[in-house]
Amino acid sequence: MKKLAIVALLSICSFAVHSQTSDSTIIRSFFNKALSSDIAYKQLEYLCKHFPGRIGCSPEAAGAIEWSKQLLQAMNADTVYLQECKVRCWKRGEKEEAIVTSARGTFIPEVCALGGSVGTGAKGLKAEIIEVHSLNALKEMGASAIKGKIVFFNRPADPTFINTFPAYGSAADQRVHGASEAAKYGAIGVIVRSLTLTSDNNPHTGIMHYEENTEKIPAIAIGTKNADKLSEWLKDDPKLQLFFRTTCYENTDGVSYNVIAEKYGTSHPEKIICFGGHIDAWDNGAEGAHDDGVGVMHSIEAFRLLLESGIQPQNTIRCIVFMDEEMEQRGGEKYAETVKEKGEQIIAAIESDEGGFTPVGFSYDAGDSVSRQFEKWRPVFLEYGLWDIRKGYGGVDIYPLKELGIPLIGLMTDSQRYFDYQHSPSDRFEAVNRREMQLGSASIAMLVYLIDKYGWRP
Amino acid sequence: MKKLAIVALLSICSFAVHSQTSDSTIIRSFFNKALSSDIAYKQLEYLCKHFPGRIGCSPEAAGAIEWSKQLLQAMNADTVYLQECKVRCWKRGEKEEAIVTSARGTFIPEVCALGGSVGTGAKGLKAEIIEVHSLNALKEMGASAIKGKIVFFNRPADPTFINTFPAYGSAADQRVHGASEAAKYGAIGVIVRSLTLTSDNNPHTGIMHYEENTEKIPAIAIGTKNADKLSEWLKDDPKLQLFFRTTCYENTDGVSYNVIAEKYGTSHPEKIICFGGHIDAWDNGAEGAHDDGVGVMHSIEAFRLLLESGIQPQNTIRCIVFMDEEMEQRGGEKYAETVKEKGEQIIAAIESDEGGFTPVGFSYDAGDSVSRQFEKWRPVFLEYGLWDIRKGYGGVDIYPLKELGIPLIGLMTDSQRYFDYQHSPSDRFEAVNRREMQLGSASIAMLVYLIDKYGWRP
Repeated sequence: MKKLAIVALLSICSFAVHSQTSDSTIIRSFFNKALSSDIAYKQLEYLCKHFPGRIGCSPEAAGAIEWSKQLLQAMNADTVYLQECKVRCWKRGEKEEAIVTSARGTFIPEVCALGGSVGTGAKGLKAEIIEVHSLNALKEMGASAIKGKIVFFNRPADPTFINTFPAYGSAADQRVHGASEAAKYGAIGVIVRSLTLTSDNNPHTGIMHYEENTEKIPAIAIGTKNADKLSEWLKDDPKLQLFFRTTCYENTDGVSYNVIAEKYGTSHPEKIICFGGHIDAWDNGAEGAHDDGVGVMHSIEAFRLLLESGIQPQNTIRCIVFMDEEMEQRGGEKYAETVKEKGEQIIAAIESDEGGFTPVGFSYDAGDSVSRQFEKWRPVFLEYGLWDIRKGYGGVDIYPLKELGIPLIGLMTDSQRYFDYQHSPSDRFEAVNRREMQLGSASIAMLVYLIDKYGWRP
Repeated sequence: MKKLAIVALLSICSFAVHSQTSDSTIIRSFFNKALSSDIAYKQLEYLCKHFPGRIGCSPEAAGAIEWSKQLLQAMNADTVYLQECKVRCWKRGEKEEAIVTSARGTFIPEVCALGGSVGTGAKGLKAEIIEVHSLNALKEMGASAIKGKIVFFNRPADPTFINTFPAYGSAADQRVHGASEAAKYGAIGVIVRSLTLTSDNNPHTGIMHYEENTEKIPAIAIGTKNADKLSEWLKDDPKLQLFFRTTCYENTDGVSYNVIAEKYGTSHPEKIICFGGHIDAWDNGAEGAHDDGVGVMHSIEAFRLLLESGIQPQNTIRCIVFMDEEMEQRGGEKYAETVKEKGEQIIAAIESDEGGFTPVGFSYDAGDSVSRQFEKWRPVFLEYGLWDIRKGYGGVDIYPLKELGIPLIGLMTDSQRYFDYQHSPSDRFEAVNRREMQLGSASIAMLVYLIDKYGWRP
């Protein structure tokens, strides 16, 4: 009995050790392969250079969808298919123009329309401007000060946050709600300081929303350096005038697609681990490299690493290329609807949408069984520099799955440079470092591997 | 008695809480100030643009020394002084040239002399080349294969390391010892693959050493992309020839300086916490931004943050701008000699020489009392993203202090991009992100503050 117990114990130990060795060897192989390869990096370059500005219903978006489908079809997947979704068809129109005229002279700042804004009409608009630093300030000033003017929202993102996402959040209300709030006091347009912590002249676009039953007035973004300059000029000459011209407009909704590839599970094909990024990107000169070409490549490359590793996943692994994150999130919504309709069992949904910087960890929106596994895996993650494992937000595209009780997980990357590029013409392929991106691809492969093998134990 | 004990306990708790609050407020203020300011970043720009290529005894090095002295003198320091040291006076000479001629045609790769190399003479040299991937391979091939040829060391840095410093280490022997090893078998020159993990045509220089009693043959570096091309062309045409011309030479030793600024301690002026980076930088078109203009700025900015915080340090805090890290480390040696001669009590020596990337932690070369404090401070560091606290190497400039038993501490930064720039023309101001750099400045201020207040408790 005693001897048997020892044998049993030994075989458990040996299994544990073997299993651990094998895990660490497999995980190590994901990183070795990712760091030694330039396949995904060259694919990102192709995506960025051939399909820049691939917003919702643009031809570039259609091309990028076809391209990513072909990429996935060339891999050893069991199925690759398109999932149709509606997309809003907002068009930027002609290159935006702006001119500042004042007692000091004139200057011509680079500007761009905010996503979803109405245009000024072909003739543009010209008016005095009034600078404010908050939506509340409008109320204090009142219609008498604002009526007929262009409101200049110039509150900087708070630079003192260590993570730049809350810094972005600290000023985002101006971009998202500024136009409707200003319209309530009779403003005829808004110009908004770009949501970035860097100092340059790149205007950063991004979605804005109009409130119902409020007049829709045109909204543009201006780079932070020019915003500072405009503010300075205003101090000199409060009667200074801004002209701007945008010709954006809405077309009827279009049709686009999520692209989905699957490798069926050997034991539980009905259970699914999914991971993805979004392929749409803003159309103001940006290539959508960090936002979110990288997230797409993280996912496709993780899929490749998993497939080529020779591991037979127990559960189905599903790679998703999401459409329309930037405008209306209809790709994510459509995906969740389909999961619900089909009654699919999703074990975990993983998203990458924080750019191709050195990964620092995972943020999960899930319950205790997920927490426990993440705590167990913490030492493995730490070996690869993933030190920040925390409860938090999963991601925009996977968010609609939350109500189904599906664990949502976001890849977190070093946030310092993200908003230097996001939604701006500077978001180009050249701003992505191959190794930093590839550490993200391998991190996702590692996480999928662990979830597939160990799941969430209650 | 019981009541008294409770009161005593309460007052201890209250002190602890107060002290903790005050620590966290002060530390937070370092980060707030660093992240909100562009002073240090603009100073880095000035240093890079006015004094690029400031190697050892160059006029640029002299200018940079004077500039940093003036910068420190304009601050509220108690003393600023120069510490004289000898510097080797190796001169790069004229812009290097190279031409590859083969059956396939010719190509002209960018090359640069390795630091400390002899020149080819005005006429240059031309010979067949022989590719090897290790120093050992020379022995296997033997003199019959090597004599009269140029040896092409083309082993890439191992990309599978997660941290790039060991990756660099995995291939550095070719640059440092390749020439003398090849000369032993009759080679007449060497061309070395650049020590970087990126794929481009920037040649990276760096120090090389000649062995005594071995013929000194000229050594140059070639970018990784051109190294791959050269290797490919060699396969086609093993008789391919390389011409190269370098005119580097040694001048008699020069004189230069470390720059030192101090704020005297209020309680223990005789005890010193020092921190620094090196101001010399390679002269091959590089601006020495990441290596190590940033380290200098980290130190000067940390000094500013500490001085302007209004804290009266208990111990003397000393900011050091080191000279001659790249060639002979004579600044660091001179500093250690002086500490020894004067019998100075250095509590800690901190160095920043890993570039201006997001800081990830501290690596310390010290005993258990230092370990214990670092473990205590771990939660504070973690708040600012400094997760990697480990025993390890301190830094090149502070290394000579080791034999005096002084705790050595190095700031560690995210290593992924460092060797993309190090010793290469791409190491320019524009490659530094303001926030990433400033997190490093505040991290050093935080560490100095904690050491000053709590020291190393036995």
